[in-house]
Amino acid sequence: MKYAILGTGALGGLYGSLLSRAGSEVHFLARSDFAHIRSHGIDVQSHWGDFHLDSPNAYDNPAAIPDVDVAVVAWKTTSNDALAETLSHVCGPETVVFVLQNGYDVEREAASIVGEDRVLGGCCFLCCNKTGPGKIEHLDYGMIAFGEYSQRLSGQITDRMREIQADFETAGIPMQPSEQLPLVRWKKLMWNIPFNGLSVILDSDTKRLTEHAASRELASELMEDVRSAALACGYEIPSEFAEKMMRDTEKMVPYASSMLLDYRAKRPIEVEAIFGNAVRAAAACGYTAHRIQTLYQQLRFLDAVNRGVQT
Amino acid sequence: MKYAILGTGALGGLYGSLLSRAGSEVHFLARSDFAHIRSHGIDVQSHWGDFHLDSPNAYDNPAAIPDVDVAVVAWKTTSNDALAETLSHVCGPETVVFVLQNGYDVEREAASIVGEDRVLGGCCFLCCNKTGPGKIEHLDYGMIAFGEYSQRLSGQITDRMREIQADFETAGIPMQPSEQLPLVRWKKLMWNIPFNGLSVILDSDTKRLTEHAASRELASELMEDVRSAALACGYEIPSEFAEKMMRDTEKMVPYASSMLLDYRAKRPIEVEAIFGNAVRAAAACGYTAHRIQTLYQQLRFLDAVNRGVQT
Repeated sequence: MKYAILGTGALGGLYGSLLSRAGSEVHFLARSDFAHIRSHGIDVQSHWGDFHLDSPNAYDNPAAIPDVDVAVVAWKTTSNDALAETLSHVCGPETVVFVLQNGYDVEREAASIVGEDRVLGGCCFLCCNKTGPGKIEHLDYGMIAFGEYSQRLSGQITDRMREIQADFETAGIPMQPSEQLPLVRWKKLMWNIPFNGLSVILDSDTKRLTEHAASRELASELMEDVRSAALACGYEIPSEFAEKMMRDTEKMVPYASSMLLDYRAKRPIEVEAIFGNAVRAAAACGYTAHRIQTLYQQLRFLDAVNRGVQT
Repeated sequence: MKYAILGTGALGGLYGSLLSRAGSEVHFLARSDFAHIRSHGIDVQSHWGDFHLDSPNAYDNPAAIPDVDVAVVAWKTTSNDALAETLSHVCGPETVVFVLQNGYDVEREAASIVGEDRVLGGCCFLCCNKTGPGKIEHLDYGMIAFGEYSQRLSGQITDRMREIQADFETAGIPMQPSEQLPLVRWKKLMWNIPFNGLSVILDSDTKRLTEHAASRELASELMEDVRSAALACGYEIPSEFAEKMMRDTEKMVPYASSMLLDYRAKRPIEVEAIFGNAVRAAAACGYTAHRIQTLYQQLRFLDAVNRGVQT
């Protein structure tokens, strides 16, 4: 299948390069790194093995990208201003949009553009940073859990899911198809909410957050808040899942989350997609997520002050 | 009456100097500033009027202080290691201990030393900083709400409360005697918990915290959490009190809380007295203060990292 990678950052650069190396036709939309990638390719240092992609199909103008089978949304939600125009260029009538962004219900924007039946969502369990133009450092993990977005197709593993899975797995990417995308999203939030949020608020990597009793307790209670929110919305996550996630995070290489790197570089952080949407989804199911909301308000404030704007 | 001021920082320096100027016999226990105060006195810049106290009775050794009628505990709770020994020097059999520290149930330590019937507690509504050795800058407010600590004397305005009130008011300090010290303490926590806590976590003064919608909302919700905790313990604070406190804080001169100044100077901050004790008191009354607890864990972490210790 033909792929467009919308956003050649850490995530898009890694998965796109793996797909391309394995023989898929991949078109990379890049912004700041376009000239570098066009001249020097993409350099991937991965715990799965280092490699260099010499001549990627790189674009800075989405109008130049041909229609693809799968448009992978790989930039941060804070860049979604460009989504409608970009999809208008890369999508034919059958193109599927595969949203790999962090957060809750982040597929809604793509669905409002191409229709929800054409949208898939996925969560990447991945430690990966962009360390320079066209330079990807993949530190740990890498699995993608994914599923259909629409109500109509929910509950199924569709044929197009299997086709995408086959391409990604050929490229060496572990894939976990799910019949319940919201459950996948809540599970991912169990990591993003404590560890992205606290990384910024407490200016710390995963090692420091897990080795102190106070931050570790708080991370556990935030996981519990996410679990309760999911349960209120009808998605049951066993408590052992949280415990395993905490143990896995402890064993991780010390990791400064991409939200922390964005914050330090004074780029916008994904407060609404990850925290605001989770708080609102929980509230719509009758659950007040006090702890998540506390972080949400702190992060809205910090992000605004960091970028010199008002909340 | 004879007074000992235990801790000649911002609060002790201000109130002690005012009492001394008005004619009370005041003995100041100072540590780091002792030599300076002995040679140069205490310099008070106050919105009530600037003055200089030329020859205060200053001590660095509590054993040299005579027995007093009232021992005012004016240092931070984080210095309470020295409390038992210090009280043993300044207290005769009738001495009253007047605890002016921030936090909840912070009188307990003095009560365990001299007996709870001899302890009063007070909350200072005060913007005041120590800006150098023996140099006090009193920016705004100044009232002290106070009451008896013991169960036995609770519900009364005792004669000794009136005597202290008379001396302080002669010195120009507005005093508000209360029959319910815990209610006074909960009311003060409605300011300390949002504004001390968030000042450190969000590295901001009162102006920035009240002018952003996100931090202002969070401060309001923290006040509500304190109000709910107090109510669970049997102390009703009207919601108008919170609204007025928020408006007063907005009108305040931009104020970096003493907790923020301590944090920036890498001194210990009063996490347990203000946050830990409040969370535990609420829990003992059957209320889980989720938002306060979130701040408590964040502050324990930040304080530990700031001083290079473990939690």
